[in-house]
Amino acid sequence: MAATGAEWSTDAAVLGEKRLDRSGWEPDGRPLAVVYPRTVEQVRSVLRGAAVTRTPVVPRGAGTALTGGSAAGAGAVVVDLARMNRIVEIRAADGVAVVEPGVITADLDRAAAAVGLRYAPDPASLELSTIGGNIATNAGGLRCAKYGVTRDSVLGLDVVLAGGTLINTGRGTLKGVAGYDLTGLFVGSEGTLGVVVGATLRLRTLPAPTATIAASYPDVETAAAASVALAEARIQPVMAELLDEATLSALAGTGLRQDGGALLIVQTDGGDDEAAHAVAVLSRGATSVRSDGDPDSLLAARRQALPAIERLGRPLIEDIAVPRSQLASAVRSIADISRRHAVPICTLAHAGDGNLHPIIVAGSPGSPIPDSAHRAADEIFGLALELGGTVTGEHGVGVLKREWLAREIGPVQHALQQQIKSVFDPLGILNPGKGI
Amino acid sequence: MAATGAEWSTDAAVLGEKRLDRSGWEPDGRPLAVVYPRTVEQVRSVLRGAAVTRTPVVPRGAGTALTGGSAAGAGAVVVDLARMNRIVEIRAADGVAVVEPGVITADLDRAAAAVGLRYAPDPASLELSTIGGNIATNAGGLRCAKYGVTRDSVLGLDVVLAGGTLINTGRGTLKGVAGYDLTGLFVGSEGTLGVVVGATLRLRTLPAPTATIAASYPDVETAAAASVALAEARIQPVMAELLDEATLSALAGTGLRQDGGALLIVQTDGGDDEAAHAVAVLSRGATSVRSDGDPDSLLAARRQALPAIERLGRPLIEDIAVPRSQLASAVRSIADISRRHAVPICTLAHAGDGNLHPIIVAGSPGSPIPDSAHRAADEIFGLALELGGTVTGEHGVGVLKREWLAREIGPVQHALQQQIKSVFDPLGILNPGKGI
Repeated sequence: MAATGAEWSTDAAVLGEKRLDRSGWEPDGRPLAVVYPRTVEQVRSVLRGAAVTRTPVVPRGAGTALTGGSAAGAGAVVVDLARMNRIVEIRAADGVAVVEPGVITADLDRAAAAVGLRYAPDPASLELSTIGGNIATNAGGLRCAKYGVTRDSVLGLDVVLAGGTLINTGRGTLKGVAGYDLTGLFVGSEGTLGVVVGATLRLRTLPAPTATIAASYPDVETAAAASVALAEARIQPVMAELLDEATLSALAGTGLRQDGGALLIVQTDGGDDEAAHAVAVLSRGATSVRSDGDPDSLLAARRQALPAIERLGRPLIEDIAVPRSQLASAVRSIADISRRHAVPICTLAHAGDGNLHPIIVAGSPGSPIPDSAHRAADEIFGLALELGGTVTGEHGVGVLKREWLAREIGPVQHALQQQIKSVFDPLGILNPGKGI
Repeated sequence: MAATGAEWSTDAAVLGEKRLDRSGWEPDGRPLAVVYPRTVEQVRSVLRGAAVTRTPVVPRGAGTALTGGSAAGAGAVVVDLARMNRIVEIRAADGVAVVEPGVITADLDRAAAAVGLRYAPDPASLELSTIGGNIATNAGGLRCAKYGVTRDSVLGLDVVLAGGTLINTGRGTLKGVAGYDLTGLFVGSEGTLGVVVGATLRLRTLPAPTATIAASYPDVETAAAASVALAEARIQPVMAELLDEATLSALAGTGLRQDGGALLIVQTDGGDDEAAHAVAVLSRGATSVRSDGDPDSLLAARRQALPAIERLGRPLIEDIAVPRSQLASAVRSIADISRRHAVPICTLAHAGDGNLHPIIVAGSPGSPIPDSAHRAADEIFGLALELGGTVTGEHGVGVLKREWLAREIGPVQHALQQQIKSVFDPLGILNPGKGI
């Protein structure tokens, strides 16, 4: 490792920390070492060495993956990209930013805001997670209902391939169709095709001031119908967050459960007229609608939901997506699954795009996850496919959903994906056992 | 062919028509036959047969490609998908349409509009070209500055692979990250990886009424600066079309050249306040600004531009993209190239995303394209790369830009792309010689 010029560590505490991500999944053993490159050349050097010694390489950002995707077991070298964290350039007139992979997502958004622009993707982890990690999982977020997922903001990538070769995919322009879309292939590939060492990203104009509306409903069906009614009224909300009854009950201190059995938090950024129109649409069937409070306090319930659920026990955060019209049906079936397996499940959903996060309360912290939780999770994945959806809307496959990925995409596509993997990683040393 | 169950033709006139697209490029010889499948099974059957006999297959939509991408030479079978033209389903609540590949793009948009939705991508050919063809080239259009290119509206694809196997990529949900993005790989692959026989597309909510503004400027620099000023004023136009001096001169009958040396036609859909703001921003430096006329007449100049140029001679329609800030510099350099090679070049640009269409007037219809036109085109491609851009913003590579593709992406990426091609098409019979 010393030959790469990068700092590195084999300290037991460091290895213990870097072998895990936030999924709770435990790999066998500990990685050999953690390398902290600061330059592209250092990453190339590490990958050259890894190819010679056939050493598995696990790229890592902030380690916030919820799937085991950035966990590293025995024999692997962790390439921790957190120190490559420079915002190289913001070209405001072009609507483009050039960054290193270790930049914290929220830091880029703040830097863009300083010149009147915005980096749109906003995963819940945005204050912790890195652009490189967001690219690895094609992270979504709250406002992607209107502004798209990470893929939609990536114009080009600098990628170190398995043997250490550097390529620059895509372009610095907003449009371009020269050759196969390798950029899109790398986005969401979970570090299995190459190591992203730089990204050219699209910045968008800051929208009009945002209006925030909190609407309570007697039940999740009415709330889901209200979110569909927004689309039918030609309103494209920036976000539409749905909290189910179990989640509202977990948020006992807020009194929100008294307002109704489901809560919808909606943001619009199309001006006052659109906001007033949204309030009118959301009022149908609602037990309470508030739009006059300060946005932070209206959003607080959404932000407090996870900590509140964590007080009930260890959370297993799931991530399915269904056609928007199936949202109420999905939430209802998940409540059934919760009852049948006698495990509490709180469901949060990005209602605008049909992406649900059923959070299974899987026993107490430190204790092993009970089988009932795993069985409930399996039924949730099956439900997603049955409703015409997917087993992962935005968190990725990692190690936890590999079997379900195969079921979702079928053997022919799975084989094609394996062959694509072999084109980029013939030795099978890039984040092995993850993603596909 | 009869065994496939599909109608087919070997009529000389039909073969003569189907061997060409709108690029003017002439392949060697004529295809063997044209097949007109009406079902997925018929396409599968054709591809099974083609694999056995090693017959090259050229998928075709409306034949409006500008690159030779849908031209078919000796020994090939043309799979004409125009008769698979059903809009299978529009699920308004989900914001999703399911279509066959031969659906005319504008027909889908009209069907979506009937339920208050919109299919956003709008290539200039939208009344002629098909969804399948748009997917093959990842077509752009006028309003993609705000609403994205074809890729951004494709959720999933049904694809018949080289051996006749059918796969369904992507999903019916707005979000999903299960496995490598094969959908994105097929979009823009110009029929070289498989034959698209169905698509699940994203529909968007119809925006507020659209305002159309026509602003004239003394020169292209001022016009380009005005389009950048829109972004700086936080206005995201739906479209921003730039017409240069040569184009305005070609539009002699309109009197537009008298209003200034460059024209910007801008549409916004964010309401009256945004439109008024846009007028104020566009007025800086303008010699004339009109926003009160009827949109159709304001847009007429843009639509009349190509027919007007065609009256000057045979058009060679080019398609480069540069960072938005380089737009004025690109237009100026193209005017230089025009003077140096003594070939008229009229430039239209989608200013919002830096995509330029220099239209080289390449001699009179029927006569061979003079060398000077080819030399001018080559200089334009070189200019695009020099300015940090791409040799094709939205038309694709086809046969005409293969050499330039290799220069743009370099040997390592080119080799990766060839290997991906081999994964999907080991016999090399899918639209051979096109794209990569």
